[in-house]
Amino acid sequence: MNTPAIILVRPQMGENIGAVARAMSNFGLSDLRLVAPRDGWPNEKARDMAAGAHHIIDNAQIFSDFPAAMHDIEIAFATSARLRDLEKRVVEPTEAMQEIHAMVADGRHCALVFGPERTGLENDEIVLADTLITIPTDAAVNASLNLGQSMVVLGYEWFRRLEARPHFNVPEQSAALASKEELHGMFSQLEDYLDGINYFRVDAKKPVMWRNLQNIFVRSRLNTQEVRSLRGLFRDLYLRRKTTAEE
Amino acid sequence: MNTPAIILVRPQMGENIGAVARAMSNFGLSDLRLVAPRDGWPNEKARDMAAGAHHIIDNAQIFSDFPAAMHDIEIAFATSARLRDLEKRVVEPTEAMQEIHAMVADGRHCALVFGPERTGLENDEIVLADTLITIPTDAAVNASLNLGQSMVVLGYEWFRRLEARPHFNVPEQSAALASKEELHGMFSQLEDYLDGINYFRVDAKKPVMWRNLQNIFVRSRLNTQEVRSLRGLFRDLYLRRKTTAEE
Repeated sequence: MNTPAIILVRPQMGENIGAVARAMSNFGLSDLRLVAPRDGWPNEKARDMAAGAHHIIDNAQIFSDFPAAMHDIEIAFATSARLRDLEKRVVEPTEAMQEIHAMVADGRHCALVFGPERTGLENDEIVLADTLITIPTDAAVNASLNLGQSMVVLGYEWFRRLEARPHFNVPEQSAALASKEELHGMFSQLEDYLDGINYFRVDAKKPVMWRNLQNIFVRSRLNTQEVRSLRGLFRDLYLRRKTTAEE
Repeated sequence: MNTPAIILVRPQMGENIGAVARAMSNFGLSDLRLVAPRDGWPNEKARDMAAGAHHIIDNAQIFSDFPAAMHDIEIAFATSARLRDLEKRVVEPTEAMQEIHAMVADGRHCALVFGPERTGLENDEIVLADTLITIPTDAAVNASLNLGQSMVVLGYEWFRRLEARPHFNVPEQSAALASKEELHGMFSQLEDYLDGINYFRVDAKKPVMWRNLQNIFVRSRLNTQEVRSLRGLFRDLYLRRKTTAEE
């Protein structure tokens, strides 16, 4: 699949390049482009920090200027912590990634562009971007997101929208939930026991007390095995109590 | 405002504790709790890595065991890269944060719990969590997200849902967009010029060509000043051309 290119313009710290590569890898991105990295290339610190993402570091393309790195890009989104004095649309990551997914589905080549750590992109570079992305952060805080953190946010927003990725809402090998019949069987067993020990004491209070008790087990969405375990537990408790009472 | 506590259970690397504090700070979180940090406390590496978030490091609470760190917590979400053999609901960050926001609005105390870097939480710790959070990542990649990266994703999901935070969709000092009248004034000036130089050549082709040309400027959503600039540009081009043609 065509995935967005990640373009780092004049990145300074090798560690940050590595952190970007690592986040790219975690979120299914692979096309890394570096414009004039300050400390040259290759860079061992970038490789060390990339953890399992050496392939991204090794396949990174190096360019001497920003327009060259954009040669085959149709639509570029530039990250910017500041609002510049330019008429440029600014969106948040959610909106940006919805658009990027739609454009990628149309076969368009997109890029996410990050400026140098300290200064960000120059105005004459920002003007080449179609849209700016601002990641919402607490304005009261001095330290803005670093390159690696920004890549995590955008990578996450990219990946979570992929239709082919696995979803985890339901555990894969989850046991079937107990049927209502199984649950009611457990309840009537328990109710017999409770009546047998005069648990509810005052008849008038029983309905509410018993409803609240049942609700605890309903809410926990028991599976068949758990119902069996609980029935055994109630039975053992009840029988032990009876024995004690008989002594 | 009541915000979720962040509980790191037996964290190993001071750098990771610092990266978590930094991300917390960027996303408006401050209640950091550490359970038995491996290298003791305080930890200089944590402080260094926290950048502008020293206050979070300095105010971190230390506990000897996980239940103690949870003493005032009503609802705990634990992050887990793996699905454990436990009947526990697993959600993704988006869903988790929708729920946490709703619970915080109800005055409930929530926590996000992270296990040790290498091993994750033990099963007897996971069982204390109400819900598990899994951050979707590329399953083909060996390196999972580290503590700091996971905190960035969850902090981002927390912060972007805050109603009081600033939104950036519209640049604050944006100039007013040009009125349609201004735009049409520019178009009729341009059309006169183009007709004057017989730009369209074949009359039958003009409607489509002209529509496509206008569309370029409509799409760019010009402001008043930009319309003035373009009108000047067209005029200057047209006049220069006429002069050339007359030579």
